Amino acid sequence: MDLIQDGDYVLIYLDAKRNWIKKIESGKEFHTNKGVIKFDDIIGKPYGSLLKNQANVTFGFYKPIGSDWAYQLGRATQIIYPKDAGAIIINAGIKSGSRVVESGTGSGALTQILAQVVGPTGHVYTYEIKESNYKTAQKNLRKVLDDLENITMKLKDICEGIDEDNLDAIILDMATPWEVVPHAWEKLRNSGIFASYSPTIEQIMKTVKALTEDKKFGMIKTIEVLEREIMVREGKTRPVTWMVAHTGYMVFARKNQNSSI
Amino acid sequence: MDLIQDGDYVLIYLDAKRNWIKKIESGKEFHTNKGVIKFDDIIGKPYGSLLKNQANVTFGFYKPIGSDWAYQLGRATQIIYPKDAGAIIINAGIKSGSRVVESGTGSGALTQILAQVVGPTGHVYTYEIKESNYKTAQKNLRKVLDDLENITMKLKDICEGIDEDNLDAIILDMATPWEVVPHAWEKLRNSGIFASYSPTIEQIMKTVKALTEDKKFGMIKTIEVLEREIMVREGKTRPVTWMVAHTGYMVFARKNQNSSI
Amino acid sequence: MDLIQDGDYVLIYLDAKRNWIKKIESGKEFHTNKGVIKFDDIIGKPYGSLLKNQANVTFGFYKPIGSDWAYQLGRATQIIYPKDAGAIIINAGIKSGSRVVESGTGSGALTQILAQVVGPTGHVYTYEIKESNYKTAQKNLRKVLDDLENITMKLKDICEGIDEDNLDAIILDMATPWEVVPHAWEKLRNSGIFASYSPTIEQIMKTVKALTEDKKFGMIKTIEVLEREIMVREGKTRPVTWMVAHTGYMVFARKNQNSSI
Amino acid sequence: MDLIQDGDYVLIYLDAKRNWIKKIESGKEFHTNKGVIKFDDIIGKPYGSLLKNQANVTFGFYKPIGSDWAYQLGRATQIIYPKDAGAIIINAGIKSGSRVVESGTGSGALTQILAQVVGPTGHVYTYEIKESNYKTAQKNLRKVLDDLENITMKLKDICEGIDEDNLDAIILDMATPWEVVPHAWEKLRNSGIFASYSPTIEQIMKTVKALTEDKKFGMIKTIEVLEREIMVREGKTRPVTWMVAHTGYMVFARKNQNSSI
Repeated sequence: MDLIQDGDYVLIYLDAKRNWIKKIESGKEFHTNKGVIKFDDIIGKPYGSLLKNQANVTFGFYKPIGSDWAYQLGRATQIIYPKDAGAIIINAGIKSGSRVVESGTGSGALTQILAQVVGPTGHVYTYEIKESNYKTAQKNLRKVLDDLENITMKLKDICEGIDEDNLDAIILDMATPWEVVPHAWEKLRNSGIFASYSPTIEQIMKTVKALTEDKKFGMIKTIEVLEREIMVREGKTRPVTWMVAHTGYMVFARKNQNSSI
Repeated sequence: MDLIQDGDYVLIYLDAKRNWIKKIESGKEFHTNKGVIKFDDIIGKPYGSLLKNQANVTFGFYKPIGSDWAYQLGRATQIIYPKDAGAIIINAGIKSGSRVVESGTGSGALTQILAQVVGPTGHVYTYEIKESNYKTAQKNLRKVLDDLENITMKLKDICEGIDEDNLDAIILDMATPWEVVPHAWEKLRNSGIFASYSPTIEQIMKTVKALTEDKKFGMIKTIEVLEREIMVREGKTRPVTWMVAHTGYMVFARKNQNSSI
Repeated sequence: MDLIQDGDYVLIYLDAKRNWIKKIESGKEFHTNKGVIKFDDIIGKPYGSLLKNQANVTFGFYKPIGSDWAYQLGRATQIIYPKDAGAIIINAGIKSGSRVVESGTGSGALTQILAQVVGPTGHVYTYEIKESNYKTAQKNLRKVLDDLENITMKLKDICEGIDEDNLDAIILDMATPWEVVPHAWEKLRNSGIFASYSPTIEQIMKTVKALTEDKKFGMIKTIEVLEREIMVREGKTRPVTWMVAHTGYMVFARKNQNSSI
Repeated sequence: MDLIQDGDYVLIYLDAKRNWIKKIESGKEFHTNKGVIKFDDIIGKPYGSLLKNQANVTFGFYKPIGSDWAYQLGRATQIIYPKDAGAIIINAGIKSGSRVVESGTGSGALTQILAQVVGPTGHVYTYEIKESNYKTAQKNLRKVLDDLENITMKLKDICEGIDEDNLDAIILDMATPWEVVPHAWEKLRNSGIFASYSPTIEQIMKTVKALTEDKKFGMIKTIEVLEREIMVREGKTRPVTWMVAHTGYMVFARKNQNSSI
């Protein structure tokens, strides 16, 4: 019945900038600059509870979703923002049951979102070249997900080849996505989707060029997604002053079979 | 092995503006202003094939994904754009197994995306007040999806109440989302997510006001998402000239339990 | 006292898309798809008058400003949009009395705005390589401006050199602005401003590279400006659906004196 | 010939975030966290010079333009950004010779830009209600401009009426621009232009409503302007990560004469 249990990871929310995902353990507490939260006060309460601490400050206690985790995991490293993760899911056609390859794993921020969308009938194969990232991601994913049965983590350079085949989609967040284009073509199923995420314009130029060669891929589309937040307050409604204006460009393309021309 | 079969719906792609999802039926053909496509030439070919018709124009034949269908279904009516669907999935935490209520069904464009993400272990309950929409959506969903077992369609005004409970998320694309706020609170599970989509600022003002009352909902966030397409061509790379600058605002909020303050 | 005279150019305004600058001549009339406007009905009326024609449609009759002319002149060719003209004026520091070189003249859309800002104590030298543009611009400028005393039009390729010196600013709207960088450096006054406008990313890459060489220019800044229109109507306030997402990038830089390092 | 003189205000530029306008006085120096700049080293050098200080850091020394001053003056208070000042100039048709009323004066950031554009044959009348702003602006304008002959500063509430008439444009950056609409109509010349700048949506709703009443104003247009900066570096070209997403909306309208309908 959606009650907070000893051992749960909970999103402790003060406001949009001050919120944390913490493991709730009996006998322990969490120190904020707005006073202490004693975990024993929280255990057994419904998720979504608003509770005041002794400093008389109200905190909300929510069940974390994939995008909450993405923000948390991203605090250490550069991650794919939720706005971009949404665009990738929708434009790469990721759904329950999809077989997806991802590289690099990074902190696992996108991996856990993908794993939750593809579900138990799908699978995420995630490649990482750097051992420290691989280990951090493994630790992170164990926190976020109940089981890792639909995830296969690989400490391997995807530029050397992809082991899996018949893939629905390949999602690349790495420095040189164009090097993976030939491997992607080999291992995607017919009409399967290539997706890459890159901060710079030079990267998307090279990626689109590689995709276009020999008409290996079609329906090539390059986008960027801007998310603008609106402050809705009576008499003071307005977009927020600052926004993240650029994270990365995304390139999407579908595998062609042009042998038949 | 991903070959086009008689009876399949196929995305016939000439360019970003000229593409259509058509049912491939033996003996039939499709007339474009770039010549005729005979379906018998396509049946048995791999998905993703590039084929020239007799007018010597090359078309691609792809397996449609949810966002392709959304664009197609949306040509008749106003729909939630894929860019917004991605934001809804990610911010409402929709994943494999989610129990979701949606209203209104409209053409079913968002319904089919949700159904594909929640998969066989989840469920989408979709409310529609207008009988003609209900029937069109039913027809559309039968085309798009192999089975409708995880969808329950309802010809019913959601303002009069929600039948289901223990919901993970409620997604509203309707004129008066604020009227549904009390029902949403009743039927969401603890920490469950409210999401609404509205074109005008007055609508989001009313929705946020309703969500804020009695602290029924927390983590309220209003955003709009802009998708900008980049034309990547050697020596001529630039954003496209025109873009869809506004479709709608999205409001997200999570169910609070404030009885305990 | 601001009355419409025989021979004046007047902005005839129906709505944001249907408006025209026309020369009002006694005895003549203007045919719209909303009926005829007889110019004799308008002559002698105050500027800003709202008048109904015989088809009972109300038109406004305004004194055209520089940006109105820019839109009109731009209907034939590609022009610098008013949004970009504003950014150029402000970032190039154009003011009453400025000495400015412009190339190419194009239709004269930017020329007339610059001439009106620099006024009688400033001067605009405008270079055009194509004779047909040169003649059209000359005709246009005679319509827009009372006198052309502060404009010098030149049928000349600016890549071959700039005749004037001690310039406050040089403004380039041409295919290869990087070729003009050395000439610009020679002829700008100390701390004078280089400004270029280019649609593609490859162009700004080359321009910035040329400006950076030998530290010839400093304070290099590349921007694009987006103008978003809001429809403000009671109960229906929202940004307009479509917008011009990209016209061009603008590069600004100031002349350095690095001999002294 | 554009040499830095004792007593000049000079823009000392390290990078986009670290730059200052300082009065260069013989015998004095300026302390930065990148070392000291001795003004005697600068006096007599050409504007635009790049000079190293003893800490071996290179600074540029430029002649400040209106937008440089706007940023500097704005560091203390909230100002109209250059991007918005450009839009106001272009959409309000401000040019050499224009007669303009502005309210409030604020720090004088917009006043000095307007004064430089309207030049000696134009005039800026600027209203301010708060004495401390009035005094600061006076001090600021004396620094920025060689003479204040084309500026009239008034310590007066513009809501109580406008003293001048036959105005080309009225520009409002104040909390309640709608209260000024009737006065603006009285004192603008025929077809003269109303412009207001407001951070919130509620303000533009009220302003547009007041302008629309009795068809007093026509050609009403509400916009916001976004400026996006691009980092152009070989192999790393991309928009900057953060941007100012919202400063204010601008409403423009032209005076109607509807007595004649």
